[in-house]
Amino acid sequence: MGSDSDLQFLEETQKMLEKFDIPYEITISSAHRSPHRTGEYARSASERGLEIIIAAAGGAAHLAGVIAAETTLPVIGIPIPSSPLGGVDALYSTVQMPGGVPVAAMAVGRAGAKNAAVLAAQILALKDPTLREKVVAYKEELAEGVWKKADALQAGTLGRGEKGEER
Amino acid sequence: MGSDSDLQFLEETQKMLEKFDIPYEITISSAHRSPHRTGEYARSASERGLEIIIAAAGGAAHLAGVIAAETTLPVIGIPIPSSPLGGVDALYSTVQMPGGVPVAAMAVGRAGAKNAAVLAAQILALKDPTLREKVVAYKEELAEGVWKKADALQAGTLGRGEKGEER
Amino acid sequence: MGSDSDLQFLEETQKMLEKFDIPYEITISSAHRSPHRTGEYARSASERGLEIIIAAAGGAAHLAGVIAAETTLPVIGIPIPSSPLGGVDALYSTVQMPGGVPVAAMAVGRAGAKNAAVLAAQILALKDPTLREKVVAYKEELAEGVWKKADALQAGTLGRGEKGEER
Amino acid sequence: MGSDSDLQFLEETQKMLEKFDIPYEITISSAHRSPHRTGEYARSASERGLEIIIAAAGGAAHLAGVIAAETTLPVIGIPIPSSPLGGVDALYSTVQMPGGVPVAAMAVGRAGAKNAAVLAAQILALKDPTLREKVVAYKEELAEGVWKKADALQAGTLGRGEKGEER
Amino acid sequence: MGSDSDLQFLEETQKMLEKFDIPYEITISSAHRSPHRTGEYARSASERGLEIIIAAAGGAAHLAGVIAAETTLPVIGIPIPSSPLGGVDALYSTVQMPGGVPVAAMAVGRAGAKNAAVLAAQILALKDPTLREKVVAYKEELAEGVWKKADALQAGTLGRGEKGEER
Amino acid sequence: MGSDSDLQFLEETQKMLEKFDIPYEITISSAHRSPHRTGEYARSASERGLEIIIAAAGGAAHLAGVIAAETTLPVIGIPIPSSPLGGVDALYSTVQMPGGVPVAAMAVGRAGAKNAAVLAAQILALKDPTLREKVVAYKEELAEGVWKKADALQAGTLGRGEKGEER
Amino acid sequence: MGSDSDLQFLEETQKMLEKFDIPYEITISSAHRSPHRTGEYARSASERGLEIIIAAAGGAAHLAGVIAAETTLPVIGIPIPSSPLGGVDALYSTVQMPGGVPVAAMAVGRAGAKNAAVLAAQILALKDPTLREKVVAYKEELAEGVWKKADALQAGTLGRGEKGEER
Amino acid sequence: MGSDSDLQFLEETQKMLEKFDIPYEITISSAHRSPHRTGEYARSASERGLEIIIAAAGGAAHLAGVIAAETTLPVIGIPIPSSPLGGVDALYSTVQMPGGVPVAAMAVGRAGAKNAAVLAAQILALKDPTLREKVVAYKEELAEGVWKKADALQAGTLGRGEKGEER
Repeated sequence: MGSDSDLQFLEETQKMLEKFDIPYEITISSAHRSPHRTGEYARSASERGLEIIIAAAGGAAHLAGVIAAETTLPVIGIPIPSSPLGGVDALYSTVQMPGGVPVAAMAVGRAGAKNAAVLAAQILALKDPTLREKVVAYKEELAEGVWKKADALQAGTLGRGEKGEER
Repeated sequence: MGSDSDLQFLEETQKMLEKFDIPYEITISSAHRSPHRTGEYARSASERGLEIIIAAAGGAAHLAGVIAAETTLPVIGIPIPSSPLGGVDALYSTVQMPGGVPVAAMAVGRAGAKNAAVLAAQILALKDPTLREKVVAYKEELAEGVWKKADALQAGTLGRGEKGEER
Repeated sequence: MGSDSDLQFLEETQKMLEKFDIPYEITISSAHRSPHRTGEYARSASERGLEIIIAAAGGAAHLAGVIAAETTLPVIGIPIPSSPLGGVDALYSTVQMPGGVPVAAMAVGRAGAKNAAVLAAQILALKDPTLREKVVAYKEELAEGVWKKADALQAGTLGRGEKGEER
Repeated sequence: MGSDSDLQFLEETQKMLEKFDIPYEITISSAHRSPHRTGEYARSASERGLEIIIAAAGGAAHLAGVIAAETTLPVIGIPIPSSPLGGVDALYSTVQMPGGVPVAAMAVGRAGAKNAAVLAAQILALKDPTLREKVVAYKEELAEGVWKKADALQAGTLGRGEKGEER
Repeated sequence: MGSDSDLQFLEETQKMLEKFDIPYEITISSAHRSPHRTGEYARSASERGLEIIIAAAGGAAHLAGVIAAETTLPVIGIPIPSSPLGGVDALYSTVQMPGGVPVAAMAVGRAGAKNAAVLAAQILALKDPTLREKVVAYKEELAEGVWKKADALQAGTLGRGEKGEER
Repeated sequence: MGSDSDLQFLEETQKMLEKFDIPYEITISSAHRSPHRTGEYARSASERGLEIIIAAAGGAAHLAGVIAAETTLPVIGIPIPSSPLGGVDALYSTVQMPGGVPVAAMAVGRAGAKNAAVLAAQILALKDPTLREKVVAYKEELAEGVWKKADALQAGTLGRGEKGEER
Repeated sequence: MGSDSDLQFLEETQKMLEKFDIPYEITISSAHRSPHRTGEYARSASERGLEIIIAAAGGAAHLAGVIAAETTLPVIGIPIPSSPLGGVDALYSTVQMPGGVPVAAMAVGRAGAKNAAVLAAQILALKDPTLREKVVAYKEELAEGVWKKADALQAGTLGRGEKGEER
Repeated sequence: MGSDSDLQFLEETQKMLEKFDIPYEITISSAHRSPHRTGEYARSASERGLEIIIAAAGGAAHLAGVIAAETTLPVIGIPIPSSPLGGVDALYSTVQMPGGVPVAAMAVGRAGAKNAAVLAAQILALKDPTLREKVVAYKEELAEGVWKKADALQAGTLGRGEKGEER
């Protein structure tokens, strides 16, 4: 993540990675304030055995793009809604990458932070049957969650303040 | 792709997949006009041996999301700038997925169409050392392309109309 | 509705349907987390005697479009302002449907939730004279409400915090 | 329609109404330049036997809203992309109606013009079994059209310039 | 104003009209909920001796345009930020009027509400030398206000919470 | 106008001023390139007998605001769509004036250019009965124009390429 | 700054200027409410020994542009998010300057206010070796700050509420 | 510049630098396709005697930010309107830099390309009296250009197709 203020969003990512038992490391490195650290991190990632990099940043969110420039690993970008423009700046800075250097952009904010982990799991599941089963089970769980909420709604036991999905 | 009018964009995707020698199939299926075909396609994809699905659509671009709902394979979405709103509608419809069901959104239009193939190559390279070499070579090619253009600019031999990167 | 967090908006819809004595059912089904449930719901709706479907969702709000793909009943879509982008994403995802598969989009948020019920009443009134009378009476009520507020303003008895119309 | 320059879009509406054998009248009346004509049109519509009003306008597209204020018939609005702002102004002016007075907003431009007729057909089909059959047949036709295009793509006979769906 | 919830903004307008000793009436009338009242108001305004109409509305803010359609008096429009889209919808609905029927659009919200009164004063001052003097004096007052704030800032006596101009 | 490239838009303004027999002068002065000329123009306007100033500019369209800062005459602003951002920049720069210094903003582009003249006529008509008659006649003309177009549409004699209103 | 309500943002600027020991003066002058004061300020700035002017304003943020029109000193503009449109209006008004009269636009809000001082330091450092050293040291400090946060994150001592960078 | 397709815009920059007799070098280096080249360029710039870096890029325009991360020289960013989103993506990516690492953002496209050179001249003029004279002379030239256009307009000799200022 580009700044420690992004941590509140990345907790969603961490929770999901842990749910899928995917080992991960988390750190802070800014594309603009610590470019060497960021470049070094990206360049060494593959050798160090990392397989996917998830980058979260707000404003002129260059972090994912800068990392994608320095590695051939898949890079997933989470636009953080931290500037007065509300996240549309981070979204455009993350997604509008030029031909040749993709970033897999997620939704702005909390939903995107969660989905970065889910996408990572889907990617890693391509070569890990155990993870695949977990991903399939998670998909069923999502559908079951909807059925349960629908039943609770019917039964009149649905708490009004509950949040169904992360936004 | 959701409509045959998207084909002009997907030619970028095809060119890159062929460059990486990644076998692929291409078809048309609309989230809205042929939902069964689309659902069937997504549900059977994994069994049929597909590993990644790339979905391109414009306007209320639901195609990638609808496919992501029906498969646990990674889904890459390309927003197509085909409506009067110029592609921002397709971008939001593609990227703003709810927690649990990610779509890896690419840039709007031609650059995104190219990058969908590059990201697919990066993902598949995680388990395919030969492809990995190609991905690494391509990255070097990108940098060399810049050096050559820079040299041509210095030498005064850069054609003015040439396009350096897909947009 | 796509998520139980949309319920606070749909209470406006429920209130108006009850005002018009229109029988209705309400449930939760996500286009992305429970696609089979959603598809089944939409496909069986007509047979089960439903005449109109109202769908509310936020973010990449595919729910209304996905339902419209599976039924020939009129589908009314309510964009919910639940993502950091403030509802413009849900609006574009709801309204920008391709040729052949319409969604009747309402205003973002509370006003739209109320109006979904009013539009449903107007549609059903085309074949139900009793409902028609109620719809006409409601229209007069709206105008009278304005007159009363205007009179209260003149008389100095208008409470400052009162809300004239749902937004 | 609010202006004769909207006619090029409304031809899509006309074609579809004729396809469904729905009798219609078409005229020009501006919310701003001919308010009495517009008001009179809307107020008399129900008595004259009209059942649905479709209104198309660009810029500060008030036409649909102004008509909805004067009738209890369902009003369908088509935002026309005729101003330098590209249609987002017409979309907001059409869809963001206050509580109590709905307009069923369609997509901006050609797709919306086509869909206005399809929605009208879906609404009228609620009380007209013959029309219902046509609407169901049309839905099948849409899906078949996708299959045919997909087959043509496979067979290499898909014309590049063809347009699959109206935008 | 279109709704009593706009009153909190119009208090700025009232304060300024009173400052300039411009007699005024204030009322509530919705373009959509009470169209006859609004039309009648606009049509009779000139005869009743009104010289300028100020209209404030949010969302699909048709009020100013609908009034401008029915009168040849200058109409000033104030876009109110009351919908989830934050006022850009009201701005576009107010300002993007078609050729022939102008609305003088003010800034969104409080600043616009104040300025509607100032513009009205400037217009009426064209034929009222006394009012003109007040308008000129007000302009000097504005400049003096800035000098005073600047002096207070220099002297360290500027309260941090003070608001310099209405937004 | 701020630049001679705005002239193509201001021809609409000129045509309407001439239609109403309103004497006018037209000149070029940039808020940024010739601030003294602009300031001098604005400050001397009232003494020289001008009653209204119409300012047209694109991009960071400061012209109307800068003139409004220097005069107490009513200032009408026309946002010109001349930058790559398509006119939304000029609109915001023209309309979002702070409390105390109004600009009467018109629609972006050609419709706004025409309406600036119409608004000027409406303002001047407040003290000029002859002009008032012309303004009233023009309003009738607008409505008649709609009737004629509607008749031509019915009669099948409406030319397809004709433009009904300036945009 | 254009208004005393901008002071809360400019405190970031002041802090940084003080950090770099750059002497400065701060005052309030509005482009619209006190144009003479503003013009005089800008015209006399160079003679009075000022080398850079930093201008902060919200809404139709003309201040930086108006100053740039009157001086050949570099002008840095800070868009303030003070209107209901959230700062995008101030950004466009600040950055979209016509050819010949540049404003160096910073990010909207707090980050931009801080950066205005940093850019000023970078500019002045071109001719001041001591300042240059401070600027270089500050850059190292930024990177070290990131390392420290990253270490704290690893050690589990990172406070959750801390803010890493100004937004 | 990030791509050779940006060259058509940078010709404006070159013309102005030559007008001011400012020596410059021009090259192509992409933030994403040739990050080492870009990083190296930025890190060595100061030692090689460069004083200002002007960076132009479109889409997710990271170039200026990436350079600013690697140098303490002032960096001027030109957003290029090369993607389907029309330049707003490049603007946000260029201007929304985090606290500590400023980029001086210019207008989108041609006007910005010209102004980058003018701002560079203004900055360098702070320590170069000869350049300062040129900058002052240029400012007078700008004003004279307006006067000449205004005279030509009055004399009826203004060519309609001429462009007054770069956009």
